[in-house]
Amino acid sequence: MGEADFVIRGDLCYSKDLSRLETLTGGYVVCLKGKSAGAFPRLPEEYRSLPLQDWGDKLVIPGLTDLHIHAPQFGFRALGMDTELLTWLETRAFPEEARYADTEYARRAYRLLTEHVRRGPSTRLVFFATIHTPASLILMDMLEESGLVCFAGKVNMDRNSPDSLREPGADASLAATREWLAACGKYRNVRPILTPRFVPSCSDALMKGLAEIQKEYALPLQSHLSETRREVRWVRELCPDAAGYADAYARWDLFGGEVPTVMAHCVWTDEGETERMAERGVFVAHCPQSNTNLASGIAPVRRFLERGISVGLGSDVAGGAHTSIFRAMSDAIQVSKLRQILAAEDDAPLTLEEVFYLGTAGGGAFFGKNGAPGSFAPGYDFDALVLDDAGLAAPFELSIRERLERAVYLSDDRNIAAKYVRGKSLFPAYKG
Amino acid sequence: MGEADFVIRGDLCYSKDLSRLETLTGGYVVCLKGKSAGAFPRLPEEYRSLPLQDWGDKLVIPGLTDLHIHAPQFGFRALGMDTELLTWLETRAFPEEARYADTEYARRAYRLLTEHVRRGPSTRLVFFATIHTPASLILMDMLEESGLVCFAGKVNMDRNSPDSLREPGADASLAATREWLAACGKYRNVRPILTPRFVPSCSDALMKGLAEIQKEYALPLQSHLSETRREVRWVRELCPDAAGYADAYARWDLFGGEVPTVMAHCVWTDEGETERMAERGVFVAHCPQSNTNLASGIAPVRRFLERGISVGLGSDVAGGAHTSIFRAMSDAIQVSKLRQILAAEDDAPLTLEEVFYLGTAGGGAFFGKNGAPGSFAPGYDFDALVLDDAGLAAPFELSIRERLERAVYLSDDRNIAAKYVRGKSLFPAYKG
Repeated sequence: MGEADFVIRGDLCYSKDLSRLETLTGGYVVCLKGKSAGAFPRLPEEYRSLPLQDWGDKLVIPGLTDLHIHAPQFGFRALGMDTELLTWLETRAFPEEARYADTEYARRAYRLLTEHVRRGPSTRLVFFATIHTPASLILMDMLEESGLVCFAGKVNMDRNSPDSLREPGADASLAATREWLAACGKYRNVRPILTPRFVPSCSDALMKGLAEIQKEYALPLQSHLSETRREVRWVRELCPDAAGYADAYARWDLFGGEVPTVMAHCVWTDEGETERMAERGVFVAHCPQSNTNLASGIAPVRRFLERGISVGLGSDVAGGAHTSIFRAMSDAIQVSKLRQILAAEDDAPLTLEEVFYLGTAGGGAFFGKNGAPGSFAPGYDFDALVLDDAGLAAPFELSIRERLERAVYLSDDRNIAAKYVRGKSLFPAYKG
Repeated sequence: MGEADFVIRGDLCYSKDLSRLETLTGGYVVCLKGKSAGAFPRLPEEYRSLPLQDWGDKLVIPGLTDLHIHAPQFGFRALGMDTELLTWLETRAFPEEARYADTEYARRAYRLLTEHVRRGPSTRLVFFATIHTPASLILMDMLEESGLVCFAGKVNMDRNSPDSLREPGADASLAATREWLAACGKYRNVRPILTPRFVPSCSDALMKGLAEIQKEYALPLQSHLSETRREVRWVRELCPDAAGYADAYARWDLFGGEVPTVMAHCVWTDEGETERMAERGVFVAHCPQSNTNLASGIAPVRRFLERGISVGLGSDVAGGAHTSIFRAMSDAIQVSKLRQILAAEDDAPLTLEEVFYLGTAGGGAFFGKNGAPGSFAPGYDFDALVLDDAGLAAPFELSIRERLERAVYLSDDRNIAAKYVRGKSLFPAYKG
């Protein structure tokens, strides 16, 4: 067995499936070559020679995945929240993103971001950068250095955007994308992802060219879908020939299928769009806090799950103010309850088990069949968090499930005692 | 000028009124005998001999008021959140509250609570205790010692409650209440408040007796009103002679008027009930997170404000998982947006200015005309927080309003550098 092989002992908690938790008090999870070899109530004989990291009664769970986050928006998170999506894009997001033409600014701002997410509970993140190739590479350099495993995408936008944040035509956008991709070969932990911002900001010629690039490089893709009612109407006006928002991607063959595709939001996704997502294996990045802050609505997650669609959670910073996917879990439960009371009483609220699954294995699956985090079952990438929840004290004994519920609602980065990505310790080294 | 007189310098922010903030960069606020003598851009000559506590560019705001919190529920906050109110009361709240018959348990649990809220952003809190006189006095002893200014109420409940948490009849409940009140004379910072739990758990005889006690002692009163649809229906069944939930209190003259009265929730309050609250000067404790967690609904706060009703914010721990009234502020904005999208498009969402007012001066007004916190305008009690928000870094300069918005969404107790209640420093002493 290799150098990076070890065993962790602690109070383990992970998802068996969407609706069931596995918990092991004083259990063992074995890491071999960066992957889980399984979790055990007693350590099997064959692993007893491996180094043991004994975290006592700390809670050990899989790392979390943030399926949707805008790197350049971290700087203004929790600002300008009194506005709706399209106004907010014009007054907050676009002007701030335009500043990333300045690489010095990008360096300063992305440093704040990467230090912050490195300390947080996500071990995997899927980032939007900006249209700027140099700044996108600065972000990817810093992420690579952080030890996190990420997708990051230089953004494409050539219409319906301010002069300061619009590429000068489809050809220029496509050329910049190829230039960016050519520079991405050096990364081990950060992979490029094709990132047309959303239909309104991408011309037909750009979409067509991106589809060609996607096939050439077999690139995954991320974008936005059916976030607000006003945006859905706008897409219908912009693309009168498309059968709807999803079709505005699908007609260019940019809607799932062979390559992993994730669409953020899907708040106003109707039956037809849901059907199409199920057929094409498109992931949903559910971003409950952003959908609340920007007054977008509440996504029909229960229906997605019933249709077998892959769903993960996104912070959508800075539509969301919080980077923590624990917060996204509790937000997802909370908005699902309000959806049931106010809009769709047949859709049962999400449970703790379900949102924990979405924030771990659910979103983690986007990282691929052979590199997925999110569970301690054998074969999963070994991404883990050690949580010191002693400060979340109760006057009585708590079960592991209760401790998990508390962590979901109350924990912050103070509670993260250690963090592992693909078997590597990000902090701190185990001291024994 | 007395010993406790001093001047604070910092970046000041407080409400002028419901919709306007006053901000002063490097401003001065003067504390004389525990009250604000006003905030000034330059320190008036007459105050220049007072000791100056210069907090540099830290943010200085009024202390926050938590208008509704259940002390015995702190121990199980963020647990059992996958249930609705009446089920949650039966399975979580009532069994846990029953344990406070044991004074040792109460002492251990209330110690956790009081240490936690002392470190948090609230300088004023309005507590429900339990039915137990000894445990209620233990809570009040600890609150008195903490330096916080509070109302706390021994709870009355003599029906529709489990055997372990039901007083043996109205007479016993009333006698225990008098016994409790007789022991409250020793407190300087903690005042008793009459606390019939809610209509379903109080018999007519108990209500009648409480009204007599209220008149005798001129006691303020707190209870619950129109929290869930199921509860509202239940009250109609229990009180067929009352015109509705509010009337079930009002017919015993327990619904505002001479003495301050606060009703938690008011989610399903209709026009008639709203009218009655306005007429009788009843305060609303708006508890957005609890109303979400327990699937109760979203209170029509915009309508309350339009009618001139006094509204403050409540954490409602443990319906709410978080004690911070900053969190209640952002929750209040967020649910108001969802209410507009999903239920009542004519009700404009709450703004940052509005929720900040509700969490400071709005709820603070419940503490009375001559002892109200919540502003730095002259005459208010000097309750203040010094916030060190340097860790909530941005790559650009922030205005004071932007820093406030960030604090509302992102701050936690790490950001509270100092805390003053009625001019007394709770922590830390200013070191110069």
